[in-house]
Amino acid sequence: MSLITPKTPPGVMELLPRQQVAFQGMLDTIRRGYERFGFLPVETPVFETTDVLLTKSGGETEKQVYFVQSTGALQQARKPELALRFDLTVPLARYVAEHERDLVFPFRRYQIQRVYRGERAQKGRYREFYQCDIDVIGKDSLPLYFDAEMPAVIHHVFTELRVGGFTIHLNNRKLLHGLLALVGVAEAERQGAVLRELDKLDKVGRDAVAAGLIEGEAKLGAATAARLLDLLGSGGTPDEVLTRLAALDGDQPLFRQGLAELTAVVEGLRAFGVPEERFRLNLTIARGLDYYTGTVYETFLDACPGLGSVCSGGRYDNLASHYTKSKLPGVGISIGATRLFSQLIDAGLIAAEGASTSQILVTQMDPALITDYFAIATKMRAAGLNTEVYPDASKLAKQMKYADRAGIPLVLLMGGDEKARGTVTLKHFASASQREVALADAADAARNMLS
Amino acid sequence: MSLITPKTPPGVMELLPRQQVAFQGMLDTIRRGYERFGFLPVETPVFETTDVLLTKSGGETEKQVYFVQSTGALQQARKPELALRFDLTVPLARYVAEHERDLVFPFRRYQIQRVYRGERAQKGRYREFYQCDIDVIGKDSLPLYFDAEMPAVIHHVFTELRVGGFTIHLNNRKLLHGLLALVGVAEAERQGAVLRELDKLDKVGRDAVAAGLIEGEAKLGAATAARLLDLLGSGGTPDEVLTRLAALDGDQPLFRQGLAELTAVVEGLRAFGVPEERFRLNLTIARGLDYYTGTVYETFLDACPGLGSVCSGGRYDNLASHYTKSKLPGVGISIGATRLFSQLIDAGLIAAEGASTSQILVTQMDPALITDYFAIATKMRAAGLNTEVYPDASKLAKQMKYADRAGIPLVLLMGGDEKARGTVTLKHFASASQREVALADAADAARNMLS
Repeated sequence: MSLITPKTPPGVMELLPRQQVAFQGMLDTIRRGYERFGFLPVETPVFETTDVLLTKSGGETEKQVYFVQSTGALQQARKPELALRFDLTVPLARYVAEHERDLVFPFRRYQIQRVYRGERAQKGRYREFYQCDIDVIGKDSLPLYFDAEMPAVIHHVFTELRVGGFTIHLNNRKLLHGLLALVGVAEAERQGAVLRELDKLDKVGRDAVAAGLIEGEAKLGAATAARLLDLLGSGGTPDEVLTRLAALDGDQPLFRQGLAELTAVVEGLRAFGVPEERFRLNLTIARGLDYYTGTVYETFLDACPGLGSVCSGGRYDNLASHYTKSKLPGVGISIGATRLFSQLIDAGLIAAEGASTSQILVTQMDPALITDYFAIATKMRAAGLNTEVYPDASKLAKQMKYADRAGIPLVLLMGGDEKARGTVTLKHFASASQREVALADAADAARNMLS
Repeated sequence: MSLITPKTPPGVMELLPRQQVAFQGMLDTIRRGYERFGFLPVETPVFETTDVLLTKSGGETEKQVYFVQSTGALQQARKPELALRFDLTVPLARYVAEHERDLVFPFRRYQIQRVYRGERAQKGRYREFYQCDIDVIGKDSLPLYFDAEMPAVIHHVFTELRVGGFTIHLNNRKLLHGLLALVGVAEAERQGAVLRELDKLDKVGRDAVAAGLIEGEAKLGAATAARLLDLLGSGGTPDEVLTRLAALDGDQPLFRQGLAELTAVVEGLRAFGVPEERFRLNLTIARGLDYYTGTVYETFLDACPGLGSVCSGGRYDNLASHYTKSKLPGVGISIGATRLFSQLIDAGLIAAEGASTSQILVTQMDPALITDYFAIATKMRAAGLNTEVYPDASKLAKQMKYADRAGIPLVLLMGGDEKARGTVTLKHFASASQREVALADAADAARNMLS
């Protein structure tokens, strides 16, 4: 029989077991953080019907979709009825519209699942990757409270992930559009052109952006460009920025509303205990042109700003207008966990491998004692300790090497002498410590040595 | 704009949030159980290349496969290069063959992911469902120890799932084939016909099976059929069955080897502490005709034997012969969690809904105290309690009703009076108890009332 080359499809992240332990630990931390704030789990099927998924027909999105067909449909060359989800937002919209009457609003959901994009395979771009999303969906209205809670969740989760310092950048789309109107850029198309230029500020600097604003599509006058950059690009503490904005002359209603919202969000996240050094106002972030309508968020790691935003989101007016007449405003954030995991490893911010799931290896010193080893393993497991038994009576050095290579931190040994004394020996690799303890105390002693 | 009907694709299980909490609890229990025995996590991509996935070309399997194509490939009417996995065994084989040099053998892995089958949609059949698998893969050889460990894992996991009594049925394919040879049924085809008849024993009874053995494809003589049914179908304790088999006249080598293996497995699982009432020998189970080569397992719930086996598996000689020349024997079991979850609910063995992920609702009694409520929520979360704040200052009755409907067990109240006294009031729904405690003690008090 000729062999088929075993090969992972291109563009996906497949991990070795101890890497998977590390990645799973990251997903668990995110999930625990989301649950700490009372978000409820939702899972949707990996595919949706194509009419549900592809409401924005003909866009960029459709070019990247993976269609799904059963054998029969393929043979009949039918048009595909199913496609893999490319984000978790469209499935959420479908879910909320479909189950509207069974949900309690405001509906707080988290969803941690993989999404699919038929991208050209290249470094840092995945065709399959995890998104970890939370959203709160209101019916008809949604208090601003939730806009303040999102940075509190980001702060909690990224603190728990232990990736060093990070800064949450906040802005408000109403404020931004109002400011543009204030300086005389009122039409949506020109506003879009301005926002695209402003988005480059962190990368190319003020002078280049000013040139772009004047010479590019936005066609601003030099004075207007300068004024805009003064208004948006200047730094300062959140209070300084808010004070500066409040002092602006101008009764543009969108600007006033956006400023009031942003002020309330800053007060709220302070009440939630988000430390001052963890957030700033960044009036240049816009997060896409259409979807978001109020508060927007981006999050940067202090050690690696070049990674770009590692957690983004914002407020939107209406989640599911394609599927229901109900008005469903919402606010949410998303972490792209697959990319983040590989970035954090590349940056040296997290370990690429976790320890084994096994905490204890019960060795076979004496094959005659095999049933004792089985019984000891059961005892350890009943005490809540993850335990495996070495599969045969190989030389002890080989058994120890297996534990070390597999990342099992503690080894349990019992030969005939120990058995006669009613004891076992515990050996801890990391501390190079070793203790002989009564069998009855072995689980407690193991727990001590592991902690 | 005309609306698109929001509809889950047919044949999948999509759950409401509190149902998802219950289902997630089941998956977490299974995962924790697998990790307790030191199994390592593996995740593979949802799709594999078609040449890897469809090695058994033209079989039943291919009829049920979902093919995956990007927009571009679809437009060019190319042959699909990708397909969704239909089980976790083929991906495991590809994974082990591909990463062979990076894995530590015996390789113990668990995998909890969804699989896909293009089935006709009908009750109890899913097109997307979770499988929760463990396998141990050896290189060249794998000690019988692991065959004894599998029932210990089943015992541990199903005890933790709290679904009442269950019985693990054990058999050995070598023993079975050896016994058939002993009574004169030596050819593979006739053996297959006999096994298919025997498989019906629990459903149709001895007489009907005897008739099938005589009149069906197997074409046994009446005496042979009776002898076979005496040998295989008689009950008794494991020791009685083993003793009866050991006393059989006949030096058929496969029979002797199978009996030795089964005897060792029974000894091993006793050493692992699996209670006598939790397992029996059932010489009629075969688990498919080709794949398994030694020990086989099925598990039945005592309250609902009609559900069929809820956890099955066995020993196989070679995992990945399509992909590598290495000999990779293994043993494993699988739980089909999606079907099991819906069956357990239908049978009334588990609750269809879990509690909210939120343990505490901080109410807004007085809108002026909103920043206090935010700070209290942060305090509770820092103490490890899942907490949400009611989003506005609605009437208290409405806030309480929300908590009750959402399944949040504990409510925290603080009005102006309590604030002046430095206290909060905790109200526990289930016990209808209420306590006023110092704010500083609120987290401890809440934990007490919740436990």
